[in-house]
Amino acid sequence: MPQQRRAQLTRHAIVVAAAEEFDRTGYDATPLSAILRRGGITKGAFYFHFASKEELALALVESQARRWPRVRGDWLRRELDPLSIAVGMLNEAARLLERDVVLRAGTGLARHRIAKGEHIDSEPDWEALLLDLLRRASAGGMLRPGVDPEAVARVAYAGLVGARVLGSGAGPGTAVRMEETWRITLQGVASPEWLSNRKAR
Amino acid sequence: MPQQRRAQLTRHAIVVAAAEEFDRTGYDATPLSAILRRGGITKGAFYFHFASKEELALALVESQARRWPRVRGDWLRRELDPLSIAVGMLNEAARLLERDVVLRAGTGLARHRIAKGEHIDSEPDWEALLLDLLRRASAGGMLRPGVDPEAVARVAYAGLVGARVLGSGAGPGTAVRMEETWRITLQGVASPEWLSNRKAR
Repeated sequence: MPQQRRAQLTRHAIVVAAAEEFDRTGYDATPLSAILRRGGITKGAFYFHFASKEELALALVESQARRWPRVRGDWLRRELDPLSIAVGMLNEAARLLERDVVLRAGTGLARHRIAKGEHIDSEPDWEALLLDLLRRASAGGMLRPGVDPEAVARVAYAGLVGARVLGSGAGPGTAVRMEETWRITLQGVASPEWLSNRKAR
Repeated sequence: MPQQRRAQLTRHAIVVAAAEEFDRTGYDATPLSAILRRGGITKGAFYFHFASKEELALALVESQARRWPRVRGDWLRRELDPLSIAVGMLNEAARLLERDVVLRAGTGLARHRIAKGEHIDSEPDWEALLLDLLRRASAGGMLRPGVDPEAVARVAYAGLVGARVLGSGAGPGTAVRMEETWRITLQGVASPEWLSNRKAR
């Protein structure tokens, strides 16, 4: 195997092992030794790729910050009404969070740093994006009269955060929980026309 | 001031300072020195009350584990229908989480330990309690036909978890977010009779 390819594989093994440990134990409580043990990685190989555990964490935060805009961009470019985009985008986010430990750990790390008051430049602002989509859905008559689009946006986003936290425990996973949130929410807020169009598809 | 009373005040000051630091920075990343500094507490005073940071964390976890069953018990004893109990109970939980840093930090710590696979004996199982209340609400005709009470229970609980995580950031706090989740959710799942009775109260 060419040396460069081997180096890439080692770096990937380090990132995955770190994500698995951070996801289970939390960043602060994970010693570097646990990451090396899980990944079967030597100290030398680790320090060839990363200067410290902190630099590794930053790589995870940056990786999620690169991926979310792509996921969002793909949905925003689809020829769908804004409510269908909001629904599809959060459901896909939930599926990705459930099956991809690197994305899940990176997203958890970013949220942890934001909670601590750190500024994460590239953090995709889900809530602002959802507010915009739901306001457009409301203007387009896709919500029932009297429904506050901002409240719907916040409830949907809280549903994703709750699904991410609870999805790793007992009961349904993150993807099913997010779908349930939309199903239950849309019944009360989406216009009857939008709902029947959706069923027809 | 009698010595015993002074000791109680010191213990309380330690617990509050620790809760504030854990809430902001996370348990693992908080050094004991930060807690002492925030609370204006000497090392001697600290070790009179607690053997370690770990013992202090346990005190917070135990404190929340004693408080939640009381909150829940008070609601379960009220002469209300099961859906009103579920709504009132989660709204009160959200208000308490928002204004009481000791409860919030203890609840966060308990959840963190559960995620790491630790068994927390006294962790109140919100989701199971909500499932029971929503099943009873469904049997009593308080939900619309065809609505899955278990999905409603999970969505409401994910709403509380999401509101706890997001409530400390920008936008509305935990209590307002939980109320929004119920308002949006109930529109689609509660029976028209229940909703009009609720408005009339």
